[in-house]
Amino acid sequence: MRFVKGHGTENDFVILPDRDGGLELSAAVVAALCDRRAGIGADGVLRVVPAKLSAEAVAIVDRAGEAGGPPPRGADWFMDYRNADGGLAEMCGNGLRVFARYLVDAGLAEPGEFDVVTRGGLRRVRLEATGDVTVDMGRPVVGGESWASVGGTEYDGLVVSMGNPHLACVTGEPVARLDLTAQPGFDPAVFPHGVNVELVNAVGARRAVMRVYERGSGETRSCGTGAVAAAVAVAAVAGERTGTWTVEVPGGLLTVELDEHTSRLTGPAVLVAAGEVPPVALV
Amino acid sequence: MRFVKGHGTENDFVILPDRDGGLELSAAVVAALCDRRAGIGADGVLRVVPAKLSAEAVAIVDRAGEAGGPPPRGADWFMDYRNADGGLAEMCGNGLRVFARYLVDAGLAEPGEFDVVTRGGLRRVRLEATGDVTVDMGRPVVGGESWASVGGTEYDGLVVSMGNPHLACVTGEPVARLDLTAQPGFDPAVFPHGVNVELVNAVGARRAVMRVYERGSGETRSCGTGAVAAAVAVAAVAGERTGTWTVEVPGGLLTVELDEHTSRLTGPAVLVAAGEVPPVALV
Repeated sequence: MRFVKGHGTENDFVILPDRDGGLELSAAVVAALCDRRAGIGADGVLRVVPAKLSAEAVAIVDRAGEAGGPPPRGADWFMDYRNADGGLAEMCGNGLRVFARYLVDAGLAEPGEFDVVTRGGLRRVRLEATGDVTVDMGRPVVGGESWASVGGTEYDGLVVSMGNPHLACVTGEPVARLDLTAQPGFDPAVFPHGVNVELVNAVGARRAVMRVYERGSGETRSCGTGAVAAAVAVAAVAGERTGTWTVEVPGGLLTVELDEHTSRLTGPAVLVAAGEVPPVALV
Repeated sequence: MRFVKGHGTENDFVILPDRDGGLELSAAVVAALCDRRAGIGADGVLRVVPAKLSAEAVAIVDRAGEAGGPPPRGADWFMDYRNADGGLAEMCGNGLRVFARYLVDAGLAEPGEFDVVTRGGLRRVRLEATGDVTVDMGRPVVGGESWASVGGTEYDGLVVSMGNPHLACVTGEPVARLDLTAQPGFDPAVFPHGVNVELVNAVGARRAVMRVYERGSGETRSCGTGAVAAAVAVAAVAGERTGTWTVEVPGGLLTVELDEHTSRLTGPAVLVAAGEVPPVALV
């Protein structure tokens, strides 16, 4: 099995090219590949399969057409994303950047703008001249206010849905000093299925520093949907709903663009290594 | 640059074949390779270089000859071992098993018994019919008793030097329940340069369960020298100094053989993947 390893702001992935659509991925195989000691190690697996060879992808494209969205552009490839535990997952902003970088570098897609089929629907990506990749993340849905508690202190935050639930807490306390080893407390009446919690400092004009505790994963180096939620929250504090924010996460720098219709996430996508698993050529 | 990734009881390594001896490894390159998010990810790097092409290895072999040890057998390859932070390191029992497995699977050494040149001197390895690899770990030097404190509780332990300092604490409290997230306390008068702490349960005849907190690394999935120290300590409790013990570590099973002259560590060594970094072929 050929693989490529890549990361976006240190959210890392094992990419599995599957041009014939014949690769059967059990949860156990995915978990073994993602094992950081006994496997290659990653936050998830991205299987790269032609959309027309996947019944699941064909159904997703059909539904997008029926929903009356914009006509698909390209949409030749399906991102079959799996979490490190082997479970299916809908979408991953950092993963989609790495997926798009892979398609273009491997000569499977033209540079520029195209759609990728994901379980979260068709997603538009754009390869920037800088090497960064921009992903359309959809429209953030802003709810009311709620709270999270970290180390005995309560923080007020904004409820933001990006398909998954977020609570983005803008605080004046430097987030670098917070202890995020434990799950922050939250209001289960507001978040019956748990919540991803962002702690955010507004630093200078349209720039934020963010740390994130992801539901089920703990603190992570980066979270694409969390970065958008953080930008929405710092914008709200400034009385704004549109514009461009730089969000500094532990794994690097992301740019979030908010307009009336959607949000876009721009950031690096790096291919680190490629090879075979199990090993074939040893010398 | 070609690489192979392998592990021994989940202590994992990036192997870099260097048959021409021309590979210059800076600390920054090693650290980048070992980065678990932005690189391949490993506990360390094993450069595989012909001993005769390394001035450092030639000097090690010469010193071993002058010290009047047994005549070297093979000793064709130098294990240039680097820690994940890029620093040079003397020896690593789990790494040496993986190194020997690589040499034989790559056709660079004959199966059976041979010496590997390491910064800790010549080390005899033996490829077992089971696929396991045995490494001569040298003679444990047993000191007196000391203590370690974990979660407010003090544990008595045996001071064992394996070249590096260990305190192996045999306890009746199930080690699976201990919280090893923090550095255990120890007596700085006994261990001025810090210590690796093993918490050990004797379970049944000649079998031990061990957890280990490694100086500078935190709790790890396995530690070869620590497994030997644990075997020495459970043997001492049973009033023995020789024999064979099975040591269960979080990353798997190890076997420790103690005789009057030396100790031997046997365990699995698995090659997981191979490839190029940065990536060359993407499809």
